[in-house]
Amino acid sequence: MQSFQPPRRILMGPGPSDVSPRVLAALARPTIGHLDPEFQKLMEEIKAAMSRLFNAPDHACVPLPAPGTAGMEAAIMNLLEPGDRAVIAINGAFGGRMADMADRAGAEVTKVEFEWGQPVDPVKVEEAMKGGPVKVLAFVHAETSTGARSDAAALCALARKYGALSVVDCVTSLGGIVVDVAAWDADVVYSGTQKCLSAPPGLSPIALSKRAQAAITGRKTKVRNWLLDFNLLMSYWGGEGGRTYHHTAPINALYGLHESLVALFEEGQQAVLVRHARTHESLAAGIEAAGLKFLVDEPHRLPQLNAVIVPDGVDEAAVRSYVLAKWDLELGAGLGPLKGKVWRIGLMGASATPWHVRLCLSALCEALEAQGFKTDAKAVLAAADAKLA
Amino acid sequence: MQSFQPPRRILMGPGPSDVSPRVLAALARPTIGHLDPEFQKLMEEIKAAMSRLFNAPDHACVPLPAPGTAGMEAAIMNLLEPGDRAVIAINGAFGGRMADMADRAGAEVTKVEFEWGQPVDPVKVEEAMKGGPVKVLAFVHAETSTGARSDAAALCALARKYGALSVVDCVTSLGGIVVDVAAWDADVVYSGTQKCLSAPPGLSPIALSKRAQAAITGRKTKVRNWLLDFNLLMSYWGGEGGRTYHHTAPINALYGLHESLVALFEEGQQAVLVRHARTHESLAAGIEAAGLKFLVDEPHRLPQLNAVIVPDGVDEAAVRSYVLAKWDLELGAGLGPLKGKVWRIGLMGASATPWHVRLCLSALCEALEAQGFKTDAKAVLAAADAKLA
Repeated sequence: MQSFQPPRRILMGPGPSDVSPRVLAALARPTIGHLDPEFQKLMEEIKAAMSRLFNAPDHACVPLPAPGTAGMEAAIMNLLEPGDRAVIAINGAFGGRMADMADRAGAEVTKVEFEWGQPVDPVKVEEAMKGGPVKVLAFVHAETSTGARSDAAALCALARKYGALSVVDCVTSLGGIVVDVAAWDADVVYSGTQKCLSAPPGLSPIALSKRAQAAITGRKTKVRNWLLDFNLLMSYWGGEGGRTYHHTAPINALYGLHESLVALFEEGQQAVLVRHARTHESLAAGIEAAGLKFLVDEPHRLPQLNAVIVPDGVDEAAVRSYVLAKWDLELGAGLGPLKGKVWRIGLMGASATPWHVRLCLSALCEALEAQGFKTDAKAVLAAADAKLA
Repeated sequence: MQSFQPPRRILMGPGPSDVSPRVLAALARPTIGHLDPEFQKLMEEIKAAMSRLFNAPDHACVPLPAPGTAGMEAAIMNLLEPGDRAVIAINGAFGGRMADMADRAGAEVTKVEFEWGQPVDPVKVEEAMKGGPVKVLAFVHAETSTGARSDAAALCALARKYGALSVVDCVTSLGGIVVDVAAWDADVVYSGTQKCLSAPPGLSPIALSKRAQAAITGRKTKVRNWLLDFNLLMSYWGGEGGRTYHHTAPINALYGLHESLVALFEEGQQAVLVRHARTHESLAAGIEAAGLKFLVDEPHRLPQLNAVIVPDGVDEAAVRSYVLAKWDLELGAGLGPLKGKVWRIGLMGASATPWHVRLCLSALCEALEAQGFKTDAKAVLAAADAKLA
């Protein structure tokens, strides 16, 4: 057993995205205690930065000590008690996961299903909301499995209209497209660190409205989860009146998240969103010039997650293996019904640059050629470049 | 908001312990994808190293993607279904936490309670086992809240005798005292990374026997937890037949754990245990020479977690503040009924060295002097040194 030296990789899958040298360096700073007064200051800075990034000034914001799925589980398990009704929109893998969790919480789950690649249709969701009291309306803002963006404002408004609490999965959206918790009047919103924040995986930033907090403190039954029980967590992360030991926070991972937030605000929240949008336009121009098509219609496309349809006669996995072997480039595969049918190309955080677009298009053209699918690589790059001129 | 530069700290509390430069450096290696073939190799190496460290050749070993508490929660939530009976030994904070989790799993919980600072008495536990079928017997091998070691072999044998599955909390024991899962014939054993393994907090190594796996795959109800459901987790970590996406593993944290295991095996498993034992003997000689007393009787004392009784007239918190301010030294406070009554001095992993013992004793003598408690610092250090001569 020897020290592990990772190979060079260019990360353009569905996450993790490339982690910048400054964030990697932050991870390696000396570990201090999780109850240290200096660590408390770090925690407060992270909470404040998350609140700013989510635009959630009135929400409680904390980074949960586990990957993005923990945010989903915390939202579902804290809000739902046995017998509660939950309406869950499913337009990809992650909506389905929410429904599974709600079932484990003992809730009655009403699934509202859509074809993978389509956004959630609020009209269809409203029909489901009408059938009796609903405790939670949950949906995915940016479906990582398909690259479709849903209308979070409209869906959160529906939740308010029917007296339900909204749960919004922003794992892939935060830092890549507008996430505006205050404007949406959303209740529980969570994300991950390994997508557009470009920190390593392992943490899940989450924001809870006052309504959500009241629902949790007023539960009749214990949350079916100890590590993610907000009744316990909030006194660990709460700044005023001292902290109560709960778990041991993942210190060094939090150094990394903090540094990624410092970098994001240095660049500017708006500038980061514009960079994601422009990089996507460049990639999309190249993809189309190569004769390839997107899974998702243009108005609903996420800039940071591009699901590209595998052309007839091309071996999906062989293309990914080729670009990994020849270009150290990681692209994502399709999940579930999209397995073998799409590639998922991430343009997230530090991976959303013109350099990444050019590398990806070059590698993809070469891999397609190797499969007998003709492309004009020069024209493809020219089309991509033109969007950035 | 600026980059965070942690202060110098010498970590001698209940964890995290000092993290060595080589483990810190490993954390900062470039992030690669969690489905990358090279990452798969890393996962297999970590699993094999954990199996060796636990001495659990026939167990499934994986590192859970959250702090040590996740190991506890995974054990309890996966094994227990509503209506199952669990016997839980409580001789400190962590046994109590297990009971809370078992209640959330819907189990009928029989608590067997002991004074804090005492080991678990198998005779008293056996009485509780007699009252009808028991699904799980859970206990803490090394109570971090008190520094008491319990007899894991005897307690696991009791579980076998009564047809129960054993759950053993080895968060603080693994890598500091003998943990021998095969000899104990234990079912579910878990640990944390931030104690004697001297990696940052954030992961929970866990081992499951074939009996435990069969109980989990044969459940009548879904596990009340999605992220920690072994029915899902094992196909993510399972080597043969490919991996199924579940969560996104905390890549860089796993680099750190891997490097800490490489370092441990380089030093040698036995050598590491001897180092912990000798360092403890040195500290204990110094503590006694200073006129201080241990909470736990000598035969049950953990070398890596030393609960020292605060003498009458000395302000517990003021001493910790003093050594933090003057020596950058972190000591632990008492929890629950021991709050204000003990200090917890950790000698874990990279913090288990003669240098740490000398620094701690020097700082402690100085802080006690400042409170009017007289010690002979020279004699204290001489007593500590004598044990290492």
